[in-house]
Amino acid sequence: MIDACDIAIVGAGSAGLSALRAVRRETDNFVIINDGPYGTTCARVGCMPSKALIEAANAFHMREVLDRFGVSGGQQLTVDIATVLRRVRRLRDAFVAGTLEFTNDLGERSIAGRARFLEADVLDINGRQLRAKTIILATGSRPVVPHEWTGLGTRVLTSDNLFEQQTLPIRMAVVGMGPIGVEIGQALARLGITVHGFQAGGFIGGLSDPAVNDTALALLREVFTLHTGARAQLEATDEGVRVHAGAHEVVVDQVLAALGRRPNLDDMGLEKLGVTLNRHGVPAVDPRSLQIGNLPVYLAGDANERRPLLHEAADDGHIAGYNALRPQPDCFHRRTPLMIAFTDPNIAVVGQRHADLDSDRVAVGTVSFENQGRARMAEENHGCLRVYAERSSGRLLGAEICAPRGEHMGHLLALAIQQQLTVRELLRLPFYHPVIEEGLRTALRDLSGQLDPIEGPDLAICDSPVG
Amino acid sequence: MIDACDIAIVGAGSAGLSALRAVRRETDNFVIINDGPYGTTCARVGCMPSKALIEAANAFHMREVLDRFGVSGGQQLTVDIATVLRRVRRLRDAFVAGTLEFTNDLGERSIAGRARFLEADVLDINGRQLRAKTIILATGSRPVVPHEWTGLGTRVLTSDNLFEQQTLPIRMAVVGMGPIGVEIGQALARLGITVHGFQAGGFIGGLSDPAVNDTALALLREVFTLHTGARAQLEATDEGVRVHAGAHEVVVDQVLAALGRRPNLDDMGLEKLGVTLNRHGVPAVDPRSLQIGNLPVYLAGDANERRPLLHEAADDGHIAGYNALRPQPDCFHRRTPLMIAFTDPNIAVVGQRHADLDSDRVAVGTVSFENQGRARMAEENHGCLRVYAERSSGRLLGAEICAPRGEHMGHLLALAIQQQLTVRELLRLPFYHPVIEEGLRTALRDLSGQLDPIEGPDLAICDSPVG
Repeated sequence: MIDACDIAIVGAGSAGLSALRAVRRETDNFVIINDGPYGTTCARVGCMPSKALIEAANAFHMREVLDRFGVSGGQQLTVDIATVLRRVRRLRDAFVAGTLEFTNDLGERSIAGRARFLEADVLDINGRQLRAKTIILATGSRPVVPHEWTGLGTRVLTSDNLFEQQTLPIRMAVVGMGPIGVEIGQALARLGITVHGFQAGGFIGGLSDPAVNDTALALLREVFTLHTGARAQLEATDEGVRVHAGAHEVVVDQVLAALGRRPNLDDMGLEKLGVTLNRHGVPAVDPRSLQIGNLPVYLAGDANERRPLLHEAADDGHIAGYNALRPQPDCFHRRTPLMIAFTDPNIAVVGQRHADLDSDRVAVGTVSFENQGRARMAEENHGCLRVYAERSSGRLLGAEICAPRGEHMGHLLALAIQQQLTVRELLRLPFYHPVIEEGLRTALRDLSGQLDPIEGPDLAICDSPVG
Repeated sequence: MIDACDIAIVGAGSAGLSALRAVRRETDNFVIINDGPYGTTCARVGCMPSKALIEAANAFHMREVLDRFGVSGGQQLTVDIATVLRRVRRLRDAFVAGTLEFTNDLGERSIAGRARFLEADVLDINGRQLRAKTIILATGSRPVVPHEWTGLGTRVLTSDNLFEQQTLPIRMAVVGMGPIGVEIGQALARLGITVHGFQAGGFIGGLSDPAVNDTALALLREVFTLHTGARAQLEATDEGVRVHAGAHEVVVDQVLAALGRRPNLDDMGLEKLGVTLNRHGVPAVDPRSLQIGNLPVYLAGDANERRPLLHEAADDGHIAGYNALRPQPDCFHRRTPLMIAFTDPNIAVVGQRHADLDSDRVAVGTVSFENQGRARMAEENHGCLRVYAERSSGRLLGAEICAPRGEHMGHLLALAIQQQLTVRELLRLPFYHPVIEEGLRTALRDLSGQLDPIEGPDLAICDSPVG
């Protein structure tokens, strides 16, 4: 016997729950199928616990700067990592509980189990067969761990089990210096752990602008060693793990593998869809509709390998859910790309990346935060921001940032880029005084001077003369 | 003998220096006249030293929350207020030095002395007479101190001499809870001083939205007592100053008067201009051109009583300088209003104030930060943000904020309002996760739900269907 429904959502993570929300508004004829723990990647092992760890690390780090303000005793502060991790889990549990509410009341429309395609419109879940008119795949992703490291057991952690540790050792390596690696690496180092970071390439934290990357490297190296340009190899020792990378070698107690994430689409029988799969087993999707080919199948969230970010996964779910309800899918304008790594200072990439620009057609404005007024007041005067504009039109294209309050300037620039503003138009914003955003203004004026060397007020002249 | 020049700038503060910059680009035929200390109000006694004090106070305040993160020893931290004030002055001196560079190389085109009008186009400076084709008045403002308080000597401080103190007493009153009063009051309290705040009216920090104001009152009252609704009277005692306000009475060692500022235009002979002066002796100006009537006289900066803010003073100077060089003045589009008080959490008012809205035509979106995700991670989950939109069009009009990182959300909202975005358009911004800006999104969704109850994805549908 084959059960049947209109819509089957596979995966109850951020994208799946967002699709569920869209679908439930219009029909009860759906099921949602989830394999493994409930609660989203974001809430369980991602954005939320990592930020709880980082805020604790940054609070402890204050001991390094308190005396500059006239505050004594900072060097006597101590941190208990077990307590920090307990707080992380307590906060995490509250956030996970919030996500469970969405599926708790679904009764038999919520199915726990692993879904496999039997036909393009029939799924097997623990031996039960289900035919669905439309299927939304939102199966998420999992951390990449090289096969040869699996023998190292708990000496190799990933974000899946890092926050489950009761405490952490005094020597750790973080292998992979992408957005997750840099922010967790810095946090661990600020908590007093001796950290060694490894990155196979030269760029870290999702950056591609060499000047901003150099700034980020220098600032992170103030608290931990960071080796770039060679792939790290691990080897078990009596005491822990020996990490080799190029000429460098170090022994640590535990390693955090932060090598990226891979889609949970293997062993799902996707070949039954009759479409081409890439080398990760992922079919092509239209990013604006999330449809796979012309099939009534949608691929949303981390599983589509587009942008493994909460806000993009939520949009994916909305789009897939919206389209699953309609005979003909609509396509949607996607948001301006925005990536933030919550290091201190923050790393952010907005709009077009430096690496994707045509340097002949683009002007670059730069600011250093060494002498920026507000940053000096707050003893956080370090960092660099570069903003890119099209020479012919003056239109803002993107920015890369490693600067204090970079997360906020990232949002401001994302809005300007989304509205297709020119540099001069953004300069009409009120930049209050004294704020970090005045540093952004310096970069914009640098850019404006290159595009139009005639200096004048930022303000626009009214059309008609006075009087 | 009467000297003559094309342009006379009176005042070398933020507005005057900004006018100087505009004028110098096109002519050498100018003088700049300054009475009293050089260096701008902002750098000497305003934004900059206050922020240096606030950052120190906030650093010391961390001792109250460190244990929540798992960090011990916070209660052993001590602060030395004399050291804090020395740091304030050291930073201030560097910023003041920066402003002096603009006039140091002017030779006899920079005149120290007090200017008075002898005729509409003739100034007297220390007995020297100067005829100018165009005059820019940028004479700034000074703190208001009631006449009857002058007998109390140094028991009554203003922002002019607060930062000059070698140390501060253990009991202080701050009279006037506008933007300056609230931020300095909270900073003094966080430095361990017992502070009593007094406000004659009911609103504080420049706010006019009752809900946001109530939040600000409650949060500030966590560190100091705050009496609203009665005018404070001072009386010298043997030990210090007795402050009465309504039924309340307290004895303190020193009082900070933060009652606002008044234009430095008295005793300047402005009656020679033949235009009407208001009760503060200030002539009317067109805010878009800064011209006084049809005279070749411009009034820029704090002296015009428009908005006593650095970025507005700088624009004023640009506009006045630009227009002073031209036979016929142009008018300029002014920036979206933005006011920030650097309390923690920040207070901000953007665009139209709540008090100026027509409540029948406006919808209000609200968010509390009690349960906001990122705010919880950072142990700063308190505050309120309210955003206003026109019901008929959905266009954003303004916001009032007392929330963590309010200064940054203020800039983001200012850009949205300046670009005349609707609520739905701003919801297309990428709101990263987890950030404080997601709290703003909650308020926008609240607003959006009132304007258009049909829920759907934030994203815009493309014009053409897929495929």
